[in-house]
Amino acid sequence: MSDAVATPNLNYPVTDRVRDALAISRRGCEELLPETDWIAKLARSEATGIALRVKLGLDPTAPDIHLGHTVVLGKMRQLQDLGHTVIFLIGDFTSMIGDPSGRNNTRPPLTREQIESNAQTYYRQASLVLDPARTEIRYNSEWSDPLGARGMIELASRYTVARMMERNDFAERFRAGTPISVHEFLYPLMQGYDSVALKSDLELGGTDQKFNLLVGRALQAEYGQEPQCILTMPLLEGLDGIEKMSKSKGNYIGITEPANTMFAKLLSISDTLMWRYYTLLSFRSEAEIAVLKAEVEGGRNPKDAKVMLATEITTRFHDARASEAAARDFELRARGGVPDEIDAVSLAGAPLAIGSVLKQARLAPSSSEALRLVDGGGVRVDGSVVSDRGLRLAAGTYVVQVGKRRFARVTLKP
Amino acid sequence: MSDAVATPNLNYPVTDRVRDALAISRRGCEELLPETDWIAKLARSEATGIALRVKLGLDPTAPDIHLGHTVVLGKMRQLQDLGHTVIFLIGDFTSMIGDPSGRNNTRPPLTREQIESNAQTYYRQASLVLDPARTEIRYNSEWSDPLGARGMIELASRYTVARMMERNDFAERFRAGTPISVHEFLYPLMQGYDSVALKSDLELGGTDQKFNLLVGRALQAEYGQEPQCILTMPLLEGLDGIEKMSKSKGNYIGITEPANTMFAKLLSISDTLMWRYYTLLSFRSEAEIAVLKAEVEGGRNPKDAKVMLATEITTRFHDARASEAAARDFELRARGGVPDEIDAVSLAGAPLAIGSVLKQARLAPSSSEALRLVDGGGVRVDGSVVSDRGLRLAAGTYVVQVGKRRFARVTLKP
Repeated sequence: MSDAVATPNLNYPVTDRVRDALAISRRGCEELLPETDWIAKLARSEATGIALRVKLGLDPTAPDIHLGHTVVLGKMRQLQDLGHTVIFLIGDFTSMIGDPSGRNNTRPPLTREQIESNAQTYYRQASLVLDPARTEIRYNSEWSDPLGARGMIELASRYTVARMMERNDFAERFRAGTPISVHEFLYPLMQGYDSVALKSDLELGGTDQKFNLLVGRALQAEYGQEPQCILTMPLLEGLDGIEKMSKSKGNYIGITEPANTMFAKLLSISDTLMWRYYTLLSFRSEAEIAVLKAEVEGGRNPKDAKVMLATEITTRFHDARASEAAARDFELRARGGVPDEIDAVSLAGAPLAIGSVLKQARLAPSSSEALRLVDGGGVRVDGSVVSDRGLRLAAGTYVVQVGKRRFARVTLKP
Repeated sequence: MSDAVATPNLNYPVTDRVRDALAISRRGCEELLPETDWIAKLARSEATGIALRVKLGLDPTAPDIHLGHTVVLGKMRQLQDLGHTVIFLIGDFTSMIGDPSGRNNTRPPLTREQIESNAQTYYRQASLVLDPARTEIRYNSEWSDPLGARGMIELASRYTVARMMERNDFAERFRAGTPISVHEFLYPLMQGYDSVALKSDLELGGTDQKFNLLVGRALQAEYGQEPQCILTMPLLEGLDGIEKMSKSKGNYIGITEPANTMFAKLLSISDTLMWRYYTLLSFRSEAEIAVLKAEVEGGRNPKDAKVMLATEITTRFHDARASEAAARDFELRARGGVPDEIDAVSLAGAPLAIGSVLKQARLAPSSSEALRLVDGGGVRVDGSVVSDRGLRLAAGTYVVQVGKRRFARVTLKP
């Protein structure tokens, strides 16, 4: 294992544009290592016009992505906007193996078709953040399978057991006597070999990926390549502002959720979390965000900033029209209000019992079911809860509401 | 990793023949594990007539073998004589990789042709001990290459890092901070996978191989096979009786050395070492050896036993005639004597100067060279060293000797 690491040429000028690119790279990131190498790569790219290669490895097992997953994608997009090439790397090789130890039943091997389908679903969703024109899609089986058994041994000769044991979870499991299978040492090497095969300049990942990203760096040096830099992004907090965003915790926003839901969920976050989301999710520049923050600190209603954020995100994953409609819908509901467009129903025979009104307006399947809804406190007339199941409505027009979402504008005639 | 190990059926009767086979298996061995499994396998083979499969892995890098290497081969031969099948396994797969870490320059990768040639040389030598009719020759690339990168990962999933670290040298190197490359964990797994591929019942090796042999046992259980037993043989002491036999220590007997040399070297060992060699190298039964030992303890000359051993070994690697000639040659030299058949030379002109005699008898290229030999103390007449370069020999017959090996029977006439 060689200690001689080829470092990028430092002789290119560090211009203002390079400094700007560095600031964009750094924004919201947890770690960018080694920063001097990254500056040198940015400067060379600026001087030569040769785009840098930015790698993101993806596990094609979880095709439904939420806002938390888009943090890293957002950073990729910012780097694409600087002119660099993004590699969307599908880890199909190991996914087709699954967990061979058989201890993890939730990770069965995937078929070629499942991987292809998951990858397409993932890419379709990721395309809402990435610029498809500057995205290269690759599958790591392309170079992993041809390695063969011998290539795998050669690869494994490039890294020591001691360095592998420096990975926190390995060290802890070893100390605790929790089994580590030998193949778990091979996965970081395979991931690192992806960087060799792709001649990656930068690899992105969550903070939990730091060790694996550094293996890629070391292996590139072993194979005589200029080593990649690594950039880790923090894990995004969920809507509660405390736990990491996760589907199983229920504190997430899926990027395929309806515009109304997405908008409303974003409006529900705390003011503090809002600024965190601005940093990690918004495409607005840091300067714009600073101005907005100053305004809020100077007395502007923080809700304005929250609406701007929700509008940006909802527009990204739907479109401007859906986002505007979601905003209007949210406002109405916020006032305990009624949506713009609700069914209008005209009924004869006033005064009518409330049960009958609900049934005829199709807000309840039957009069008896309607009375149960009244008993449960779920029925409102013009915004007031109906507590009397004997209520009769006189002629006139009323907004009748069942639960939170079902409305009718009822006109009663004699 | 499953803990459920299929053990051999214990329901076959343990007959006297089985007990004899067990005694033969045990003879001279360091460890035979687990003995109850081996008894069960022997009993089943005895009852069913199905031969057991006995594996020996060989590194095709060192084709010149000495008596130390034949200890394990001798055990194989004893098992063949019991009717079992021996697998002479050439480890060509890893030899074609060499030491990919590049730290060990003495282990360059071998070509297919080198391996083939080394394996043939090795097998030709081993055939002097093994019974070729009951020997299966295999190359492990047959099943190792088809594993591919995925198969290698699957294999590595069957064993834990913690168990690998139980190997003494790994544990010590890890503690001492001496690098262990990850691929060094793969080699024992590949060797173990050989046992799976061969459905081995017993693997033999030196005591230094114990860990690797046990990996094979564990992997067979992982792959749902009845696991092999393991049998380790001690490393043979060299002629000095202290250090292990080794070419680099000069205390070895190569099995292709001339019969005279082999016989003489065997006669040079101590009486204690002789009994060790009987146990580990002789094909005589333990009963025969016990009788011989009792005779020696009762007063018989131990040299008789040593001659019998040297005769057996020399006959094995040469033939009976060469062995007898070597024995005669040894006796003559032991008496400071002269070999049976030496050149007879008749010279006229006695008395003759010693230089002239040596030259004319072709024991020296010139008279001046002959005198240098006299000055060096390397010339004997009838067994006495000639110290006077002015010596003149009168008429008569003399045995003239130069160095240890060159003789002439010279008859001088006036």
